[in-house]
Amino acid sequence: MDFSHLLADRTHKMGASAIREILKVVSQPGMVSLAGGIPAPESFPMDIMGELAEKVIAKYGPQAFQYDFTEGFPPFREALVPHLQRKGICTTAEEILIASGSQGALDAIAKVLVSKGDKIAVEAPTYLGALQAFAPYEPTYVKMDTDDEGLIPECLERVLAANTVKLIYLVPTFQNPTGRTLPVERRKQIAEIIQRNRALLIEDDPYSALRYRGEAVPPIRSFAPENVIYLTTLSKVFAPGLRLGVCVAPPDIRRWIVVVKQGVDLHTSTFNQALAAEYLSGGYITRQLPKILAIYGPRQEAMLNALAVHFPEKFSWSKPEGGMFLWAEGPKGLDIEPLYWKAIENKVAFVPGRYFYTEPGEGLSTMRLNYTMCDEATIEGAIGVLGGVLNGALGTRPGRGA
Amino acid sequence: MDFSHLLADRTHKMGASAIREILKVVSQPGMVSLAGGIPAPESFPMDIMGELAEKVIAKYGPQAFQYDFTEGFPPFREALVPHLQRKGICTTAEEILIASGSQGALDAIAKVLVSKGDKIAVEAPTYLGALQAFAPYEPTYVKMDTDDEGLIPECLERVLAANTVKLIYLVPTFQNPTGRTLPVERRKQIAEIIQRNRALLIEDDPYSALRYRGEAVPPIRSFAPENVIYLTTLSKVFAPGLRLGVCVAPPDIRRWIVVVKQGVDLHTSTFNQALAAEYLSGGYITRQLPKILAIYGPRQEAMLNALAVHFPEKFSWSKPEGGMFLWAEGPKGLDIEPLYWKAIENKVAFVPGRYFYTEPGEGLSTMRLNYTMCDEATIEGAIGVLGGVLNGALGTRPGRGA
Repeated sequence: MDFSHLLADRTHKMGASAIREILKVVSQPGMVSLAGGIPAPESFPMDIMGELAEKVIAKYGPQAFQYDFTEGFPPFREALVPHLQRKGICTTAEEILIASGSQGALDAIAKVLVSKGDKIAVEAPTYLGALQAFAPYEPTYVKMDTDDEGLIPECLERVLAANTVKLIYLVPTFQNPTGRTLPVERRKQIAEIIQRNRALLIEDDPYSALRYRGEAVPPIRSFAPENVIYLTTLSKVFAPGLRLGVCVAPPDIRRWIVVVKQGVDLHTSTFNQALAAEYLSGGYITRQLPKILAIYGPRQEAMLNALAVHFPEKFSWSKPEGGMFLWAEGPKGLDIEPLYWKAIENKVAFVPGRYFYTEPGEGLSTMRLNYTMCDEATIEGAIGVLGGVLNGALGTRPGRGA
Repeated sequence: MDFSHLLADRTHKMGASAIREILKVVSQPGMVSLAGGIPAPESFPMDIMGELAEKVIAKYGPQAFQYDFTEGFPPFREALVPHLQRKGICTTAEEILIASGSQGALDAIAKVLVSKGDKIAVEAPTYLGALQAFAPYEPTYVKMDTDDEGLIPECLERVLAANTVKLIYLVPTFQNPTGRTLPVERRKQIAEIIQRNRALLIEDDPYSALRYRGEAVPPIRSFAPENVIYLTTLSKVFAPGLRLGVCVAPPDIRRWIVVVKQGVDLHTSTFNQALAAEYLSGGYITRQLPKILAIYGPRQEAMLNALAVHFPEKFSWSKPEGGMFLWAEGPKGLDIEPLYWKAIENKVAFVPGRYFYTEPGEGLSTMRLNYTMCDEATIEGAIGVLGGVLNGALGTRPGRGA
């Protein structure tokens, strides 16, 4: 029976996803994928998972398997206080909400705040998963320009002056897709702008722990705690399959997130929260994080070196101090998408950057490259293949470092 | 800072929840609660949880902790095929979707289908958690009358004739809140009615495995598979804190549930799905289910016996063959809510039945009683207290069985 006439208005608009279509080929056998945004399985603390499970079962018994508070499992919320403190987030267990991944928090925030047609200000380019969480609530987007240091504060100022903006969404550290990090000065400017405009900002921070070089930058929330909903996740420092997101929000927003989340999934898995509580409070994370960095750091370096060797001179790319992605940009006028298909023929996948923009026609010459899922030799080979495709298209020879 | 002006239209309407307010007192120390809808912790297979976790870690390794398909972890979907078959649901692994609890499926279905003002037909009384999942999508409700055998098919027929109904929502077996079960003849009639009207029905089936007496009744879906979205959960037969719901839907609805769920939480916990896969495929559930029934059956019996002894003659109640709830109804004109507060003073909690109706003024003399969380002696004592309160209000003496 055909039930398509029953679909809600919002559903028709969610429609076919162009990126989902083009990425279908990524799972073909033999494909080397720089397209994903997935932590390496070898970064998971598999050697202690059994021990953590045993500990949780012994310590909490059936409580770890029972229905629990929508706000989150209290021992996990407690364990997050010092963890967040180390990230520059001063808060209490009561102020912390647990979500089913950051995705769950993004969904709940949009459900609480966004009416049809409301404006969300986003970086250009921005994180696709956030757009996917927001889409069912039918917002419109106002794009804010970025440069090598992320969001340009003056652009935020202009956007807030010219629009009634419901919500600002940023990934300030090792951004997805660009890898860029907002310097502390810009963070302070942005904090001042949102305070003065009484604006509300989502600071989405999944990657800041993945720092391979340089100094940590304080979160925007540390400069404007009342105007920021801060999100982070255990997906990149523990295990993404456990679906554990963390949200610190101003009290009158937080209250509604709880009401909304109760309707969505009652609460996030108690057992998984208990595992994470032990992982944090037992100090396991302190031992695991250096291992994770020791896997990703050399992969990033391998990619940066290979880009210098193989990519055309006319390309530039980000050189982030951490995270999971690099962002490469070719000469204006170059359309990367046909070259995506050429790369696929040569068994290398990436994501054409245009898909991270809310407006069509932008970012045509850009590409996102992930380096967490492949070892150094594979990355070197894959960038070689991509360099060949790009040089072929431009009629040039490999770049600067060659 | 006050951000209440930023709330979405839908959020204002979710407002304060009257039931949440009255149930706040339930967690007072010393309270005996017949108010919950929570499985007994002693029903969880704690003796094998460690073994299951070890098995999963050995068998699936990091895969059990990695991002996974939005549709669900393939080995869990495979293991559900024979499990659902035993419930009378013939389907394939491809047709099964995993949700974060049934709640997650209800949210996703409403998100896919319900536009503001759309009509959802529900039993009077109906399951509150479903109303909570639907609320943010701003439906209106059409109530369908019920009797001791559940939904009256003629009423469904009338409702479909008089209204454009987007969705019908039923809990046909051991309903929450009444405990009632639709007999097979009514199921066939309902199947015929929805087929003839090309209507779509959610059959929410969390309780059918909790049968203490009598014969299983086939699900409505077995008579109208193309018109039914079937939901079940592992919360009552494994552990609710793992948040594992199961959804079998017609293909063109299923496709959209996946798109929507991806925006909500990407996917349900891989590790928890892997635990459930082992629990089902390893035959653990076959050994656990009789233990669960051996806990709940005597508790239900104790409550039924105590009601006969202590409740006023003017009260009647459901005598279900399974599930978690009994539904008691006093004489017309009796308002139970003031007596709720009397009972609370005497340290016994239940849920006044009015909260399970979508229309104000209905069910004033009704109450929902849960028997899964207390042992037989506690149940006997609590029903004695409630009987005293009710007899006091009616100026009567204890009932029939005394």
